[in-house]
Amino acid sequence: MSKVSKYSSIHYNSYLQLDKILSAQDTKSQIVFGKSAHEETLFIIVHQVYELWFKQINHELYSIHDMFNQHMVDERNLGVIVGRLDRVTTIMDLIVEQIKVMETMTPLDFLEFRSLLFPASGFQSFQFRELEVLLGLKKDKRHTYNNMPYQDVFNDERKQKLKALEEGPSLRDLLEDWLERTPFIDLDGFNFVEAYKAAVAKMVESEQNAIKNTDVLTDKYKEMRIKMVGDMSTYFASIWDPNHHAKLIEEGKASISYEAMVAALFINLYRDEPILQLPFQLLRKVVEIDEGLAMWRYRHAQMVMKMLGNKIGTGGSSGHEYLNKTAQKHHIFSDLHSISTLLIPRNYMPKLPPTVKENLGFHYKPKL
Amino acid sequence: MSKVSKYSSIHYNSYLQLDKILSAQDTKSQIVFGKSAHEETLFIIVHQVYELWFKQINHELYSIHDMFNQHMVDERNLGVIVGRLDRVTTIMDLIVEQIKVMETMTPLDFLEFRSLLFPASGFQSFQFRELEVLLGLKKDKRHTYNNMPYQDVFNDERKQKLKALEEGPSLRDLLEDWLERTPFIDLDGFNFVEAYKAAVAKMVESEQNAIKNTDVLTDKYKEMRIKMVGDMSTYFASIWDPNHHAKLIEEGKASISYEAMVAALFINLYRDEPILQLPFQLLRKVVEIDEGLAMWRYRHAQMVMKMLGNKIGTGGSSGHEYLNKTAQKHHIFSDLHSISTLLIPRNYMPKLPPTVKENLGFHYKPKL
Amino acid sequence: MSKVSKYSSIHYNSYLQLDKILSAQDTKSQIVFGKSAHEETLFIIVHQVYELWFKQINHELYSIHDMFNQHMVDERNLGVIVGRLDRVTTIMDLIVEQIKVMETMTPLDFLEFRSLLFPASGFQSFQFRELEVLLGLKKDKRHTYNNMPYQDVFNDERKQKLKALEEGPSLRDLLEDWLERTPFIDLDGFNFVEAYKAAVAKMVESEQNAIKNTDVLTDKYKEMRIKMVGDMSTYFASIWDPNHHAKLIEEGKASISYEAMVAALFINLYRDEPILQLPFQLLRKVVEIDEGLAMWRYRHAQMVMKMLGNKIGTGGSSGHEYLNKTAQKHHIFSDLHSISTLLIPRNYMPKLPPTVKENLGFHYKPKL
Amino acid sequence: MSKVSKYSSIHYNSYLQLDKILSAQDTKSQIVFGKSAHEETLFIIVHQVYELWFKQINHELYSIHDMFNQHMVDERNLGVIVGRLDRVTTIMDLIVEQIKVMETMTPLDFLEFRSLLFPASGFQSFQFRELEVLLGLKKDKRHTYNNMPYQDVFNDERKQKLKALEEGPSLRDLLEDWLERTPFIDLDGFNFVEAYKAAVAKMVESEQNAIKNTDVLTDKYKEMRIKMVGDMSTYFASIWDPNHHAKLIEEGKASISYEAMVAALFINLYRDEPILQLPFQLLRKVVEIDEGLAMWRYRHAQMVMKMLGNKIGTGGSSGHEYLNKTAQKHHIFSDLHSISTLLIPRNYMPKLPPTVKENLGFHYKPKL
Repeated sequence: MSKVSKYSSIHYNSYLQLDKILSAQDTKSQIVFGKSAHEETLFIIVHQVYELWFKQINHELYSIHDMFNQHMVDERNLGVIVGRLDRVTTIMDLIVEQIKVMETMTPLDFLEFRSLLFPASGFQSFQFRELEVLLGLKKDKRHTYNNMPYQDVFNDERKQKLKALEEGPSLRDLLEDWLERTPFIDLDGFNFVEAYKAAVAKMVESEQNAIKNTDVLTDKYKEMRIKMVGDMSTYFASIWDPNHHAKLIEEGKASISYEAMVAALFINLYRDEPILQLPFQLLRKVVEIDEGLAMWRYRHAQMVMKMLGNKIGTGGSSGHEYLNKTAQKHHIFSDLHSISTLLIPRNYMPKLPPTVKENLGFHYKPKL
Repeated sequence: MSKVSKYSSIHYNSYLQLDKILSAQDTKSQIVFGKSAHEETLFIIVHQVYELWFKQINHELYSIHDMFNQHMVDERNLGVIVGRLDRVTTIMDLIVEQIKVMETMTPLDFLEFRSLLFPASGFQSFQFRELEVLLGLKKDKRHTYNNMPYQDVFNDERKQKLKALEEGPSLRDLLEDWLERTPFIDLDGFNFVEAYKAAVAKMVESEQNAIKNTDVLTDKYKEMRIKMVGDMSTYFASIWDPNHHAKLIEEGKASISYEAMVAALFINLYRDEPILQLPFQLLRKVVEIDEGLAMWRYRHAQMVMKMLGNKIGTGGSSGHEYLNKTAQKHHIFSDLHSISTLLIPRNYMPKLPPTVKENLGFHYKPKL
Repeated sequence: MSKVSKYSSIHYNSYLQLDKILSAQDTKSQIVFGKSAHEETLFIIVHQVYELWFKQINHELYSIHDMFNQHMVDERNLGVIVGRLDRVTTIMDLIVEQIKVMETMTPLDFLEFRSLLFPASGFQSFQFRELEVLLGLKKDKRHTYNNMPYQDVFNDERKQKLKALEEGPSLRDLLEDWLERTPFIDLDGFNFVEAYKAAVAKMVESEQNAIKNTDVLTDKYKEMRIKMVGDMSTYFASIWDPNHHAKLIEEGKASISYEAMVAALFINLYRDEPILQLPFQLLRKVVEIDEGLAMWRYRHAQMVMKMLGNKIGTGGSSGHEYLNKTAQKHHIFSDLHSISTLLIPRNYMPKLPPTVKENLGFHYKPKL
Repeated sequence: MSKVSKYSSIHYNSYLQLDKILSAQDTKSQIVFGKSAHEETLFIIVHQVYELWFKQINHELYSIHDMFNQHMVDERNLGVIVGRLDRVTTIMDLIVEQIKVMETMTPLDFLEFRSLLFPASGFQSFQFRELEVLLGLKKDKRHTYNNMPYQDVFNDERKQKLKALEEGPSLRDLLEDWLERTPFIDLDGFNFVEAYKAAVAKMVESEQNAIKNTDVLTDKYKEMRIKMVGDMSTYFASIWDPNHHAKLIEEGKASISYEAMVAALFINLYRDEPILQLPFQLLRKVVEIDEGLAMWRYRHAQMVMKMLGNKIGTGGSSGHEYLNKTAQKHHIFSDLHSISTLLIPRNYMPKLPPTVKENLGFHYKPKL
């Protein structure tokens, strides 16, 4: 019978396994030169803290993955999911701030032990790759680094694990599936796409008329404005024309499916309806995660420039440039980033029929 | 012959000892219930990160301690010391921010595993006590917690280590010694204290005259203002009267010695002179460290209130109240905090004689 | 007919009325001495920015006040309200950060113009008083400053406005009303208070039995733990005994009504049910606002100490002490802060009957 | 005789000119539609706060400009300059944080009033252009926006002011001049450039030998590493060969003069010498300002994408893309950013002769 009990005594030290945590800062300078470079301890601890946060982020992402990886996402879980995504963005804010700690090390301090680290590199962080793949960064979308497949720095077991992750659905994929299943797009005789098409047309016409009828503009200026308003309708083609959207995907200008895009638009427009309030928060949060990650890459690039200048990184490549490129390119939810392209002002939005509205509300009706 | 070489290969994973770092998150809920409470991982990681940062802070404090613990502090080290103190405050800002991560855990989530942690408690963090003692928190100034000597939660070896630290000079003590050795207070016939006394008297007189001679104030108001200005001189008594300062120390209203206080004042007033620029930065930094620590305690208290309410903490006492009290009381450099009480406007400041001024300058004189 | 049109041209400069905004930094040092003290511009701008943010915060608070000041709060507005409260806390985070900007001014810099400001003081900020009263800070709960009614520094019109605000319902009052109207506490034969009483009793008994039956604890320790668990039930008395709660209010230990307290507890426990997800976020947000305000007061007190030392402020009183006291005392939603005192672990929570659960869900039921 | 006096009474409200500040938020939606869009107030206040901070930043930059615009920079001013640059970076951190406040506005909220703002745009902020030009952003280095000269949106008076600023020396120019005047590069028979050339050669040789003599590397790997170390010397050519540096300037790969670059390197290497401690802090600060500005542009670009998507901005161009480009390109002190390219580890650094060392120290010599 296990002696482990809820009521056995427990000490802060053993519970947190501090013997392991606090004995893991052996400096290479001590080993090689017999004298620690003062800042190497900082360098090690900063990276260990990063890895602890990556572990926490992945802990959250896996749990969200599980909740989404269902035929039917339990609506009671949506609050939990939004809460956990919020935790992830809070951690991301923190690890961006953490760069300031690293920046208290000057380049000259870094040079004391830098050559000893070759060829170790942040590119060898397994948890970070796991994080990227879990979120949905695809192999063929990666900015290559020294023309080397990113997984080559890992052992076989880890390569295998990344491969399996890449083959299974990512969070991005599961979110797309979930969006595609949104039931309210075509319900009770209300066809959202048709209604939206009409609304956009009305908006364009009304704006153009207003310009025509004003007497405070010059004719040349009127013409220019009228054209600009007319051009807006081209943005919206991807909503009422699935083929147009398909073409955008082909050209790499869109990523998620037509159905998912329409659902995301619907949620953004009718976010105040009770059943859409948490889905709306969810869509905002995933964009924040993308941004948080990009910000971390960007700040990281800034720091590497300051620390190493234009020299190549310990991994044998220009770290600054690589990081900068990934900050620009490695977006996972870019369709959701730019969804505001497809929004129209509230006064033009199609009114929802009462039956649809009821379906977006709570079961309980307060007595008036 | 050692095979360890600067050029042996090194991997991110082994260098950071991630096998140890990332295998140290065994949840008690898994052990007791056979199923991990989701947020317990967060709870563990947040505390492990704190301990890593405490290790880093202590690494800096010990190194500064060494540089100060000399008969003569090398002036070339002052820049290094200010830089390291700046690192400490940067880390303190970060660990205050980190509380936001913990606050993404709701009280209900915490209750899933809280009872399992009894009686472990943050009061058992050895490194934090080390940090406090190193800085200079004295045993008799501590707010007691459950009427228990703070070191009782540690084993004999650690008790011994804390005792030795408490008996040696703390950073606060070494800073006091260093201030006492400032040579410029009474140099080349310039007596700073006498000059300052005259300057304050002149300031008081001049301000009072200006009030008397204005015609925009009522007599009653003039009287009140004149009295207020006169009262100011009482603040300054501790500068020109060592006995008054001694009395303040006795009453617990001052802490550092008279000589150190005068030197700190001198540095604050003449901070623009080359030789005083870094000492001035140093005095600012130690105040920031005090504030950073108080802020961490304060935010910690807020968080504990939200998480546990008025319930007693896992350590068996009301954590919220304890932390709040320490945020108010555990200041180490309080004399430096309130040094602005003793400053006067620049136009009343005693002019330094040319020989003193030369002594506060660089050796190199640019050719004009 | 108005010539003002949607299509009249508009310039950044005139739209933002920058002529007014950027011409409002006349330094008193320029007026009196004929030469601006460099840092006085900073001092003015920092305070002007504060006032702009206060205007924005009040803009949000008034709008939320309107949405709550209804017989029936529209459930579509809850998302909007939570969003606006989130904006308020985001601004509060920012104005706390802003103190760092003020702290780049040294006390000696401040002394260049400080005496010119007498007796102006931050206590004369009308918008800040408005903010406090709007939220629900009551006159008799205020920490007095120089024994002077806080509104005495304002002219009659403003005194009148504050008086009217104080007499009307504050946000705290409206939130209390809204909580009291929560319909699910006693619905369809489910009496939450009774069920919770039983659950707490079961929890206490079960925990005590577990302690008794363990063999890893000493008898003395068991006894102590059993007593501690038993004591917990006293916390909960305010839930099942309205008279006990009434007594706490009388003693100043509780503030919101019994009915509101029970509803807040219910929302905290069953926050995952669809209809309670936003109410839960709302309760979290108002606590954050309280904390944000307290943090601002606390940091402000720290800064005043550094800038003025123990000297009295320009308003004629010790600003540091006053601010510190208000940071400790001026809480408005303190019952919600400490609500975790009343929570129990999920496994002991009363199960909701199916009809109640249906009432907490959406109207739309997905087809399986 | 002026009645304005130091002792005339003064009120918070009139001192801060709050009547002007708080009456400058007329929404265009109110004017056009007769009903304010709730978020337009936020939009206005956020921008007004930005302009107040820009005014403060320019206030600091002009004052630093004055102190630098001298034949001889007073060494007593260096502490002041570093302090004011630190204030500027603190404000920059704050205005980056402030974007979070703007992001609490959703795109749908923005659409309520966005069309009313056309064609006003942030590109019409005069103070921001002033800031850029003061720092040293040159006309021909600007990323063009709609192929339009950036100053075209201003009236003649303002165009004239920008032109004059552009023609006078910028902060970047004055910093370059100051660096060029650094006297220690060739003093008392010590030629820094020659000494550094020898040091780099010794470092390269020593590193290559160590690689050759190790027995833990394969031959192929040794060869690769030896080549990498050898390639390093090409970086340094710009230090010992003024012509090489001139070529880099021609190719747009360097910006500051050869003499300034050598001085900046000297300061970075010997930063611990008393006379170089503040110059070193100064060089760090200007890089931080560049980074802070880039960060603000980057975050601004992120926000614009979220708010407007791929739509063109109110100024008639794609704001997101423009801002993103300027974040990448508009660096002013890029040579200082990447100066670490030219550093070598401390153990290879040339030792300074005693007479040079004395010249870098203080006049006062403590008695041992």
